[in-house]
Amino acid sequence: MWDRLIECVPNISEGRRRDVVDKVAYAADGPGRKVIDLSMDPDHNRSVITIVGQPEGLLEGILALAKEAAALIDLNTHRGEHPRMGAVDVIPFIPVRGVTMADCIDLSRRVGERIARELSIPVYLYEESATSDARRNLATIRKGEFEGFAEKITLPQWRPDFGQAKIHPTAGVVAVGAREFLIAYNINLATADLSVAKEIARAVRFSSGGLRYVKALGFPLAEKGIVQVSMNLTNFKKTPILRVFELVKREAERRGVMVIGSEIVGTVPREALYDVARMALQVRDFSHDLILEERIDDARIDDARIEDASGEDR
Amino acid sequence: MWDRLIECVPNISEGRRRDVVDKVAYAADGPGRKVIDLSMDPDHNRSVITIVGQPEGLLEGILALAKEAAALIDLNTHRGEHPRMGAVDVIPFIPVRGVTMADCIDLSRRVGERIARELSIPVYLYEESATSDARRNLATIRKGEFEGFAEKITLPQWRPDFGQAKIHPTAGVVAVGAREFLIAYNINLATADLSVAKEIARAVRFSSGGLRYVKALGFPLAEKGIVQVSMNLTNFKKTPILRVFELVKREAERRGVMVIGSEIVGTVPREALYDVARMALQVRDFSHDLILEERIDDARIDDARIEDASGEDR
Repeated sequence: MWDRLIECVPNISEGRRRDVVDKVAYAADGPGRKVIDLSMDPDHNRSVITIVGQPEGLLEGILALAKEAAALIDLNTHRGEHPRMGAVDVIPFIPVRGVTMADCIDLSRRVGERIARELSIPVYLYEESATSDARRNLATIRKGEFEGFAEKITLPQWRPDFGQAKIHPTAGVVAVGAREFLIAYNINLATADLSVAKEIARAVRFSSGGLRYVKALGFPLAEKGIVQVSMNLTNFKKTPILRVFELVKREAERRGVMVIGSEIVGTVPREALYDVARMALQVRDFSHDLILEERIDDARIDDARIEDASGEDR
Repeated sequence: MWDRLIECVPNISEGRRRDVVDKVAYAADGPGRKVIDLSMDPDHNRSVITIVGQPEGLLEGILALAKEAAALIDLNTHRGEHPRMGAVDVIPFIPVRGVTMADCIDLSRRVGERIARELSIPVYLYEESATSDARRNLATIRKGEFEGFAEKITLPQWRPDFGQAKIHPTAGVVAVGAREFLIAYNINLATADLSVAKEIARAVRFSSGGLRYVKALGFPLAEKGIVQVSMNLTNFKKTPILRVFELVKREAERRGVMVIGSEIVGTVPREALYDVARMALQVRDFSHDLILEERIDDARIDDARIEDASGEDR
């Protein structure tokens, strides 16, 4: 595996025409990066593409994807339930392994600068890459959507971070940024009473007094006759999954309700599962050196370095 | 990483002469296998070498190691606390990834056959590779040690599985077999009362009525003023770590004692930690597909196969 690894999850404004989505997504493939997932949503008319790679490979891949999206998607005729402002609507970079958040911020700025210059699409930097607090939140930037942006972009406070104050006529504008890995995590409760799920969601989410990096809603799972606390964990390093699970379980117990089980939607970084194991077992001196496969990977990385070095000497 | 991975942990009867241990251990290095750990014990005059690799690579590596050990170690002059019967005393193969126990048994037989034929060292198959129940247990085979084996090997019931009924004059005999990964796992208790650790060890270990794949002893940690339940988990797939931890914790609580923490000695397979996370979070439909890095590895393995295939076509 690559030793420096960043994930990128561009959202594009097309979720119905399979051929278009395929062309846009696989435009990103190439040396040093790889499309690993593709999820189309026809109702939202939107697709989420997951690409992983080394920083340099990813830079070229994302530029190719943005170029293809601008060529094939026209926002003037796009309809869908999900708010959107661009053909490529949002491009987040996420540190996975051997890189820091600073590396992802740096990459987002380089990608943003080149999208503006080479494709004439104005770029807003958001989340960790934002140039002011007012631009951290994607929903705030996107307000007004594609239809409103021709005017919004001319306002002094909405001057783009890269490119001219003029939308691309068909591809609109795009938000590029860096953020932590987001884990979609649901816990199912042994009751049909929706108010229990809603109360627990309120108790654990940040916005109403709960844990800092938890967003939560209560939902009914009608076909199963139970309810679910559906969550986004936006920083598993600072608000670990096990703590969230235990808090939800405790809140459910307080209401006389059992936890049936939990589910991870999409993917979870290995590190987040190691954290669960470390906490559940109360392991004091946990390190990657304890894990057999990490030692093997390290040995092989050392190997590659030795081979590289000897190659240079010859 | 290699997609088919076996671990081998040969124990050799030399733990004092660093140069000899290095020569024997690194004789195993080569294409398709890698020495990842080396632990010398001068009191026992014994060293434990950890090698991982693909089956074919490992076969050649272990033969080279056994040959070097037979050349450099003479059991006639060897003294140490640990019982031993050969220059290479025991060679266990352990399935790690993409292989079954049957693959490891097969490999142990091929290695055993070649050691007997090429190095004239008689071989006993043990544990999962044993040809009869009487030969499963290593301690039973080793009884009498090097000094007693010249006679023991002539008994009909101790005829070796490979090779003649005659010990190698300096290298003795060797046990080769397959077994599950062994996790060395300790739990520290907030008491100085050794009887608590001993009672809990008795409660959780197989031999006195506890869990099937747990060996346990109670020890004092004098310098810290606490006690420890020290365990070997011999099959984490059937007796998972979290269940062991929770049982020890419950038994400690029953005696009014808190668990301070736990520690993993040596290495633990990634799979065992995934199991802890899965159980602690009550995740119902857990699969490797949920783990970001596993998806990346799979994508890269697919890649390699595609490249291989296209290479053949050209």
